[in-house]
Amino acid sequence: MVLPKVSIEIPENKTYKDLIEEYGEDLGVLQREVRRLNLSVTIIFEGWYDSFIGEIINQQLLPFDSRGFDFYFTEAPTSEEQKKPFMTRFSRKIAPKGKLAVFDRSWYMRGLIEYLLDESGPLLCSIPNTEKDPALALFTETSKKEIIHTSRFENLVNNINGFEKTLADDGGILIKIYYGMSKGDRLRQKNTWKKTTPYIIDKRSTEKVYREDIYVIKELLDRTHTGYAPWKLILVQQNMDLAILQTMKTIIDLLKPAVERARQDFVPNVNRDEKDDNSDSMDSVFEIKDENKNENRDKNGNRDENESRDENIDFDLIPDHLSAVDLTKSYSKKKYARLLKKYQNRLSFLQYVLYSQKRAMVLVFEGWDAAGKGGSIKRIVQSLNPRFYRVIPVATPTDVDLKHHYLWRFLDGIPVCGKISIYDRSWYGRVMVERVEKLCTKEEWQRAYDEINLFEKMLTDPGIIVIKFWMHVSKDRQLDRFNARAANPLKHWKLTDEDWRNREKWDEYYEAVNQMLDRTNTKDAPWTIIESDDKYYARIKILKTIVKQIEKEIEGPEKINQKRLNE
Amino acid sequence: MVLPKVSIEIPENKTYKDLIEEYGEDLGVLQREVRRLNLSVTIIFEGWYDSFIGEIINQQLLPFDSRGFDFYFTEAPTSEEQKKPFMTRFSRKIAPKGKLAVFDRSWYMRGLIEYLLDESGPLLCSIPNTEKDPALALFTETSKKEIIHTSRFENLVNNINGFEKTLADDGGILIKIYYGMSKGDRLRQKNTWKKTTPYIIDKRSTEKVYREDIYVIKELLDRTHTGYAPWKLILVQQNMDLAILQTMKTIIDLLKPAVERARQDFVPNVNRDEKDDNSDSMDSVFEIKDENKNENRDKNGNRDENESRDENIDFDLIPDHLSAVDLTKSYSKKKYARLLKKYQNRLSFLQYVLYSQKRAMVLVFEGWDAAGKGGSIKRIVQSLNPRFYRVIPVATPTDVDLKHHYLWRFLDGIPVCGKISIYDRSWYGRVMVERVEKLCTKEEWQRAYDEINLFEKMLTDPGIIVIKFWMHVSKDRQLDRFNARAANPLKHWKLTDEDWRNREKWDEYYEAVNQMLDRTNTKDAPWTIIESDDKYYARIKILKTIVKQIEKEIEGPEKINQKRLNE
Repeated sequence: MVLPKVSIEIPENKTYKDLIEEYGEDLGVLQREVRRLNLSVTIIFEGWYDSFIGEIINQQLLPFDSRGFDFYFTEAPTSEEQKKPFMTRFSRKIAPKGKLAVFDRSWYMRGLIEYLLDESGPLLCSIPNTEKDPALALFTETSKKEIIHTSRFENLVNNINGFEKTLADDGGILIKIYYGMSKGDRLRQKNTWKKTTPYIIDKRSTEKVYREDIYVIKELLDRTHTGYAPWKLILVQQNMDLAILQTMKTIIDLLKPAVERARQDFVPNVNRDEKDDNSDSMDSVFEIKDENKNENRDKNGNRDENESRDENIDFDLIPDHLSAVDLTKSYSKKKYARLLKKYQNRLSFLQYVLYSQKRAMVLVFEGWDAAGKGGSIKRIVQSLNPRFYRVIPVATPTDVDLKHHYLWRFLDGIPVCGKISIYDRSWYGRVMVERVEKLCTKEEWQRAYDEINLFEKMLTDPGIIVIKFWMHVSKDRQLDRFNARAANPLKHWKLTDEDWRNREKWDEYYEAVNQMLDRTNTKDAPWTIIESDDKYYARIKILKTIVKQIEKEIEGPEKINQKRLNE
Repeated sequence: MVLPKVSIEIPENKTYKDLIEEYGEDLGVLQREVRRLNLSVTIIFEGWYDSFIGEIINQQLLPFDSRGFDFYFTEAPTSEEQKKPFMTRFSRKIAPKGKLAVFDRSWYMRGLIEYLLDESGPLLCSIPNTEKDPALALFTETSKKEIIHTSRFENLVNNINGFEKTLADDGGILIKIYYGMSKGDRLRQKNTWKKTTPYIIDKRSTEKVYREDIYVIKELLDRTHTGYAPWKLILVQQNMDLAILQTMKTIIDLLKPAVERARQDFVPNVNRDEKDDNSDSMDSVFEIKDENKNENRDKNGNRDENESRDENIDFDLIPDHLSAVDLTKSYSKKKYARLLKKYQNRLSFLQYVLYSQKRAMVLVFEGWDAAGKGGSIKRIVQSLNPRFYRVIPVATPTDVDLKHHYLWRFLDGIPVCGKISIYDRSWYGRVMVERVEKLCTKEEWQRAYDEINLFEKMLTDPGIIVIKFWMHVSKDRQLDRFNARAANPLKHWKLTDEDWRNREKWDEYYEAVNQMLDRTNTKDAPWTIIESDDKYYARIKILKTIVKQIEKEIEGPEKINQKRLNE
């Protein structure tokens, strides 16, 4: 069977760049529809080592709102995962309704390595080695191809097809893309790659292993090319832009009809899910219910004008950290473009240094509505490999979250060493929106400062780099941006009633923010205030702060780190 | 500082057994109050290796409804956990509101081993070895005691105290019990232990290591004996019953006043949480809402008498698996007691065999309301070490669950190899309550049979033993038990309006159950129907089935397993 190859025609009057932009907009719209229509979309990317899948995925993911998908780089199983049935760890990660899940390698490559070749140690630990499929004993290094005739291979195929059918039957959308590359192209690319990054080339990339494995992979693809989960094949050549375009087009072509069908069936009475959408709004981290507010009132039931002020603290003693911020700072477009390139390139390099030195990093983004958090995060991840970072959008807590301490739901996002977590809003909600909207008691937000400092110390103590940004805009500039959003149909979804409501409480938030900056500005996890009336200036300052901080951490007094880097 | 030792007086007219029963009832009541009042209760048990903590914990946990607490045996960190800050994995497991979490060893013993002694490999992987506390280099094997003067030790103490204060401030209840044992008692117990089980004695139990470590532990206990999280010290001697009593009494004494306080503050308008309580009811796995029912109606909106019958299937072709069940089977109390002891002892032994052979097991309990699932599960876990098993009560799905495929929420409970998961109700809800109550579409429950078979194949393929019980009672016997529950104030909570409602739909459930037994009775994961009109008979048959199945799996054609066992 021949798998369908993706081909694409470039209209004469358009450049690659034009098309990437165009497709990007389509994908952005589709992503929002996926959320609104409660679809579950899982995209898997497969391909041989050094097919530059990482780079292609990164580019084609950019149009997505990084808060709207989960990215999984499928690596060797953890010691815990190794003790469970093979498909378990993938099943857990399939996209929930309203979300996208993107897998960089999946149950295919891991199936080959773990399930068939048994290279990651004893995966199926409950079966003693002697009980292995006897056919397995037949093939040696030189006849690996024989594996496709074993019952083990049959099992894997049946497992996968059954799993994907279950998914499809439930209305889940599964997009499977395989990247192929000719031998010559692979070798050329590998050499370029070696020069530009300190990333380690995988040992599996030798030609000998390749020829053996690709034979098995081809059979696996053929046998799993089903009506409910077909493969799309993209041939990667020298032109990376073309591969990116093909990828974007493939996703659009598969997603559009599915969204269209769902649109027709959709009954728009699910207020709740629509609300979830407003993750850009300060308020939306909690659904504000009047009952809650009542519950959190003082016991005497009073709620006078001064209640929001904290009578135990003399506010005049807290320095105003915000009034001195010079919001006139700005960059010209030209200067911005130059600096953006400079710091993005540097950050792109430094992520590998962090990885190789096993240093983790946490970036916290807080700021006024429309201060530019989303845009800034986008400029950061543009230069990162999705295998190394995760964006964690902080939305309405689930009912499970609400059963725990308020810090609990942030624990899962703490990065393992070598990786980066970017929190789009964070645990600081406790001392901002929850304080101002009275979603917690005064006693609770007051002790939260210490709790947060302790929590961040838990991160910095073992060497995690913590950088916190407060994106500051003037009230006037916020209004301009609100109006611009209201006028632009592509950005209209970003603006909600809650944004306007928050704006009315500007002064209360101002006081809360100021106290937050004062109480949680610790030595190891300091705040950086970003002058954000000019988006160009803001983005550059953020990138520069991150770059400088990493450089400081990896050089520092311990020259040993620098030495390692140069080895 | 001297930590408070727990002492207890045994009234002359009572035996240990009397008191254990008495305390057990108190604990059962307290547990239900914890749930009703939405309290978060975390109990940690600490002590030296071979202090028989496992055995003591197991006994004192028995009065608790095993569905109402999470048990954590704290082992070496997984490869994933090793890459994260030390306290993270404990923080994630702290009891949510309305639940108990029980830790067999916790951040104390692990703190000592991982954080101070660094024995589990590079835990703080982001800090290069050379950056270690210079003081650490000072002490050698023979002067380990010096560790308490390092800044690392200070850090651990501060981390723990800060963490526990955060917990307490949030209203969390933390009970900390340390078991001490004299040298002579320890050695004596160890020898008994060696004879009765194939369990491996930890290498840390040598006297030399003990003397060094205990010095550090003592200092750690002293420094963490705080007002918000005090220690209770229990001296374990030859008499295990006494230690168990002391433990139960300690928990009761600490929990009672906390529950009392909460009771006074409690405003009982939280209908939802009260509903959650009815986990024994067939219906309660879903909150039945009328809107939902409407949504799941056929598109034409009809809902006639025959709709619940499946017109695509000729029901006469499905054999009636239930009509032939002989519900008169019973055992005398004497025979029951004898067989109970026999099979519990055997199971107690076999659990270690499973562990040492790395075989996992899944037990699925389904049955009519009041068929005796809870009581049967209790008789199983009585003979198990809590380190090896987990009871997974299947309750109302959370909003997170509802965003996924219906099988998703069961994935987390799949046991790692060597361990046992007991599902109290399960994924079969799809083809019973969800079918009968129309919580899913007909198409959905119809395809669920295949999905479930595939899911269970995923378990059995790598060698997990799957045993499924349908506990069958007559309609009359169910009524007797409902009435008995209604009359007994200690069991009254077990009976809900939903139980009565389900009873009215007996015939619809009967049809669903019969079809379920027919469609999902696979070779590797067969159903066992349990005649449950007589509880004694039912419990013995369940225990016997489990024992026989394990014996079959570990003997079987592969004598290698048996050999290993004898080594």
